[in-house]
Amino acid sequence: MKTVNDLQTPALLIDGAALDHNLATMAAALPGARLRPHVKAHKCTALARRQAEHGHRTFTCATIREIEGMAAAGLGDDLLLANEVVDATRLGKVKARVTVAVDSDATIAAAAAAGVREVLIDVNIGLPRCGCMPDDAGRLADLARGKNLSVRGVMGYEGHVVGLDDRATRERLCAESMELLLAAHRQVGGEVISAGGTGTYDCNRWATEIQAGSYVLMDTAYGKLALPFRRGLSVLATVISVSPAYAVADCGLKSLGMDHGNPSMDEAMVLFCSDEHITFVPEQPVRVGDRVRVWPAHIDPTIAYHERMHVVSGDELLETWAVDLRGW
Amino acid sequence: MKTVNDLQTPALLIDGAALDHNLATMAAALPGARLRPHVKAHKCTALARRQAEHGHRTFTCATIREIEGMAAAGLGDDLLLANEVVDATRLGKVKARVTVAVDSDATIAAAAAAGVREVLIDVNIGLPRCGCMPDDAGRLADLARGKNLSVRGVMGYEGHVVGLDDRATRERLCAESMELLLAAHRQVGGEVISAGGTGTYDCNRWATEIQAGSYVLMDTAYGKLALPFRRGLSVLATVISVSPAYAVADCGLKSLGMDHGNPSMDEAMVLFCSDEHITFVPEQPVRVGDRVRVWPAHIDPTIAYHERMHVVSGDELLETWAVDLRGW
Repeated sequence: MKTVNDLQTPALLIDGAALDHNLATMAAALPGARLRPHVKAHKCTALARRQAEHGHRTFTCATIREIEGMAAAGLGDDLLLANEVVDATRLGKVKARVTVAVDSDATIAAAAAAGVREVLIDVNIGLPRCGCMPDDAGRLADLARGKNLSVRGVMGYEGHVVGLDDRATRERLCAESMELLLAAHRQVGGEVISAGGTGTYDCNRWATEIQAGSYVLMDTAYGKLALPFRRGLSVLATVISVSPAYAVADCGLKSLGMDHGNPSMDEAMVLFCSDEHITFVPEQPVRVGDRVRVWPAHIDPTIAYHERMHVVSGDELLETWAVDLRGW
Repeated sequence: MKTVNDLQTPALLIDGAALDHNLATMAAALPGARLRPHVKAHKCTALARRQAEHGHRTFTCATIREIEGMAAAGLGDDLLLANEVVDATRLGKVKARVTVAVDSDATIAAAAAAGVREVLIDVNIGLPRCGCMPDDAGRLADLARGKNLSVRGVMGYEGHVVGLDDRATRERLCAESMELLLAAHRQVGGEVISAGGTGTYDCNRWATEIQAGSYVLMDTAYGKLALPFRRGLSVLATVISVSPAYAVADCGLKSLGMDHGNPSMDEAMVLFCSDEHITFVPEQPVRVGDRVRVWPAHIDPTIAYHERMHVVSGDELLETWAVDLRGW
């Protein structure tokens, strides 16, 4: 039996039982195309295949390379690039059904010029990021149709809402955001209203499909929201130095996304991270050579640092998956 | 002539003139083996070769893969792994001169078992990270010599000092740290006293060699210290969406190390980053398709996200280098 002790550290571990639980829980709540899983969270076609086995055959991507990799892996039934691109040349060459988000004359022109056939009108519903003003959506849809693009509907992302701790506030602000998207949809038409994320998967009742990604492995940021998903991703590290007051293990800023702050450890207080180190105060003494697990605060930029992930059951090593959708 | 407009974004750009200036400035201040450049900052053998051309043939590494890659690139005259390892098997197989830091019985045993021949005693001089207590250094040196390891001397890192804005404070605390290292060195012996970083390269007068890395490309964190090095690394991004109050470009948390906070932009205020986006308020109007340059707050974890870096002169593309020392 291979175990985690056979792995070089730092190494990304997926808790196989948590993964199974999360996949099953989401598939029950949002079966089939009601969920359009966002692959940016995990950047892994092997994990996307597990989502497909649970009935989700439509996927959301954030980069052109994610689209290309998903198509090459045979997971290209219906891929949405939920992001604007100014040069869509590579998208136009992908052998799969590709829909791209557009929010301006320029991005519509780019899609048309590259031979992309289908678009969603991306609408700003409160997060200061991409998306047209809601009252401009109808004009953009007409413009796109005038260029022989098929307008499948609208998308919007209530990203300013998905991470709010208080469920009532989350529900109220989600509803307000979706009013904007539904108003835009009335101008645009089409069968798709794509929105949502892990934090609003069960309160966004207006979207025809939810773009959740983090649910599948979770992180400490989403862990505060009392969602029915379990944390499933840790970084395995080796204790390399022990002092009377603290210990040091070999994972750091290059194996952890840090925008949400420090990672967490069970039975230890994390002091700080540097490039290849985490300094922590353990509750019980540790020794050089001990293995510890570190829980990232944000999984997306954590996974993007790693070449592979290992699926484990306790200490048993079940499978190793390539993080094959990295880069751009 | 190829230009930055031929690049897909996000893309890492090195300002060739700033790089040349930084290499020359450091080589004049710390010629030859007085500098042991830290490759963890750039993870790029092509850039290390430029450092070697400026007279520095001894290098510092943070990971085993960096050691392996430097040796494979023919840059293995004298490689220091300035980090503890519990399993040194791969190190023992490297065809190059390899010295490893040790700070405990266990890491000494690991070096000896793997056939590594040379070590430095790593001493804690104030940063709560690796390194033995100064008064334990002599015992560890004796232990290492008893296992037929050659003890070349000591190392320590005043990492709690290198980033302090005020030069007088930096000098005072550097001197205090080095007193601890020199006391340990009197117990250990050997010709090497390895310490320092970009922030103390010119005030650490006691080390025989300085382990600076960031000087070569700098970042906004080190930029506050009034050092004679110029910022040389930016992320090129494309404006993909423009609203009345802000604009959005296509670089984000997966192309920027975020532990030192948000990156900066000239002539724009950065609002926030998400996975593949930066939202900013430009001083002058920008249009979809415009290219912008984003200055990372911390270069080390920024570069570790990228497969390659492009050396430019203004908008002209001079060379493309692989970031070939990523991973572990």
